[in-house]
Amino acid sequence: MTLADRWLLPEGVDEALPEQAAKIEHLRRTLLNLHESWGYHLVIPPLLEYLDSLLTGAGSDLEIETFKVIDQLSGRLLGIRADFTSQVARIDAHCLKDDGVQRLSYCGSVLRTMPAGLDGTRSPIQLGAEIYGHGGVESDVEVLSLMLQTLSTAGLSNLVLDLGHVDIVSGVLAACNLNADQESKLIELYKAKDLPELDRYAEELGCLTDIQKQWLVGLPRLCGGKEVLKHATDLLGDVNESIRDAIVLLQKVSDSICQRFPKVGLHFDLSDLVSYSYHTGVIFAAYVPGHGNAIARGGRYNNIGQVFGRSRPATGFSTDVKALVALTDIVVNKPKTVLSPICSSDELWQKANSLRAEGYRVVEVLDDICAGDADFKLEFVDEAWQLMPVHN
Amino acid sequence: MTLADRWLLPEGVDEALPEQAAKIEHLRRTLLNLHESWGYHLVIPPLLEYLDSLLTGAGSDLEIETFKVIDQLSGRLLGIRADFTSQVARIDAHCLKDDGVQRLSYCGSVLRTMPAGLDGTRSPIQLGAEIYGHGGVESDVEVLSLMLQTLSTAGLSNLVLDLGHVDIVSGVLAACNLNADQESKLIELYKAKDLPELDRYAEELGCLTDIQKQWLVGLPRLCGGKEVLKHATDLLGDVNESIRDAIVLLQKVSDSICQRFPKVGLHFDLSDLVSYSYHTGVIFAAYVPGHGNAIARGGRYNNIGQVFGRSRPATGFSTDVKALVALTDIVVNKPKTVLSPICSSDELWQKANSLRAEGYRVVEVLDDICAGDADFKLEFVDEAWQLMPVHN
Repeated sequence: MTLADRWLLPEGVDEALPEQAAKIEHLRRTLLNLHESWGYHLVIPPLLEYLDSLLTGAGSDLEIETFKVIDQLSGRLLGIRADFTSQVARIDAHCLKDDGVQRLSYCGSVLRTMPAGLDGTRSPIQLGAEIYGHGGVESDVEVLSLMLQTLSTAGLSNLVLDLGHVDIVSGVLAACNLNADQESKLIELYKAKDLPELDRYAEELGCLTDIQKQWLVGLPRLCGGKEVLKHATDLLGDVNESIRDAIVLLQKVSDSICQRFPKVGLHFDLSDLVSYSYHTGVIFAAYVPGHGNAIARGGRYNNIGQVFGRSRPATGFSTDVKALVALTDIVVNKPKTVLSPICSSDELWQKANSLRAEGYRVVEVLDDICAGDADFKLEFVDEAWQLMPVHN
Repeated sequence: MTLADRWLLPEGVDEALPEQAAKIEHLRRTLLNLHESWGYHLVIPPLLEYLDSLLTGAGSDLEIETFKVIDQLSGRLLGIRADFTSQVARIDAHCLKDDGVQRLSYCGSVLRTMPAGLDGTRSPIQLGAEIYGHGGVESDVEVLSLMLQTLSTAGLSNLVLDLGHVDIVSGVLAACNLNADQESKLIELYKAKDLPELDRYAEELGCLTDIQKQWLVGLPRLCGGKEVLKHATDLLGDVNESIRDAIVLLQKVSDSICQRFPKVGLHFDLSDLVSYSYHTGVIFAAYVPGHGNAIARGGRYNNIGQVFGRSRPATGFSTDVKALVALTDIVVNKPKTVLSPICSSDELWQKANSLRAEGYRVVEVLDDICAGDADFKLEFVDEAWQLMPVHN
């Protein structure tokens, strides 16, 4: 590598210089404080774990995204976390024996082998929150509310919330008695939203009744505003109970969110399948205008702790602090800067430290080049060290 | 892996559950605020970089400690950082073009292939500060002062500071005209502090004059309190100028530190070689009673940015936030907890959020199991939602 190359960073990997780092740190603290004020307890899972632990349950989708290294001590494979969810599930299952509701939050770096998300990053600072131990709609609403509150606290407005439920696609597919190949093909078409090809393929499936064809073809068209839930009841209300329950749940969630966040745009996409396959209920994602990728996403994922010996209902969301900083205009208050001579006397050393404790930024001047943005300097006047204004 | 194994963490890797996580987060913020009040700007280097960048200059000692992965995008080797120093040097050299003094601080996870430090960890949360662009004793004193202030702010007392200078061993070896094998053998003996074997080996070296033997044998005995500097001048003052300069520098540093931190114990070890080989001047480490490993360490490492195209004097220190939390008794103030019914009305939703903004922790009650440590509950009394004390 030549000298010129050495400072190039890998694709999707970035660093924060002082101005941006101050914004990230400020937002990190603000959002963790918000989560604390909602009753969420911070946990700090390790950056690397045995690969088996990281990828079981929640994480099996993540295998391709996870960097792997060999543990020199045990000879076993370790993974650098690409997501917090399975780690927090392990903590809930194993370390926190409480049978009641557990609210946990986290914030830290994750690494991914491939770029993803809003800015094609491989090193987001993931921040999120999870509720364990409650399976009802109230916890879905709480986590969704906290997600929207997190985004609005970060300074985002004009949010659009995308809502879906994994039981709807799976319920329709189950009701059509298809074989595995046919189901895969349909899921592929739903993901690609390729409606003409879907229509053609459904027509080709000779095993289907006319009503089954209508379900399959109509499902990806259940996409839009609140009227979608009404259309879904008309089209799919008689398919089976799990679909009816899912539609009722989506109705309850959207009613609560409308009441709490009247300015947030609601959008439904009942054939949405882009989330991780560990989800088991309502799924959601938040978007800002002008960006195709979600800024935050989450959903219900019951029983994820089962592989760790404790099966509990769970719901949660996550976002990327760096992406939030890039989208918002955060102003960090800078402390007043005081230039001080080298603190070679006891009086000056004490004075500098008491000013620091009061909130000033006191900088010992080490060279002739004077910091241009100073507000004060310390001068020895009338037998004491005093703050004197600097006129720039 | 069986179910029982899945939650075992790799050796030297740990996680922080809520109580400890709150302490770590609290100390992290307190210490970064302290560094800001001294004029240090936070930077956030990436968790992974091209291995070439991580290991050049500062980092060549770190090769064995660094986890390596292959970049699927470029096919090149990447390293997970095991230390921040070379990253911050790269940022100073490339990204911050300022020719004046640059003060930078950082805090984040690092990973090491082998356990190290006070608690045999492989995943410390490293926190540190560096000054670039000043080569004088004043910046050594500033960084050392900030290190001691950092440790005392964290709640550590009875600190012992170990001081040394890399020019003393190298100056003595250079003055003895030894070959590479002989130098390696002596360095090994100095590191092991094996004095009887050293005496025997020096006697065996026929090429040495008597005075050279005295230098080699006397050097590792220059170990103890302030009197060591006097003895060093007597023994080594005539060897060469770099040794004289090093002793004068250590005298100045220790005088300043004694004045600023009269309670800190000073210890000199002039044959100390345990630090990274990138150091070029004064080196230091802080210890607490009862622990054999340093709790913080640092030193001068000029010209580390040379490989990135900008050679600058530099000095800095680092510590591990998790190790500090383990050694101190940090008390984190908990907010008052308020239990609230599910916020299904607009009034209650607004009330809960305004209490949160005032600093309360407001928890919506999701299940019958009532949080035992609540201070208040929200009740609808006299046509308004009001805080009512909970008598536990």
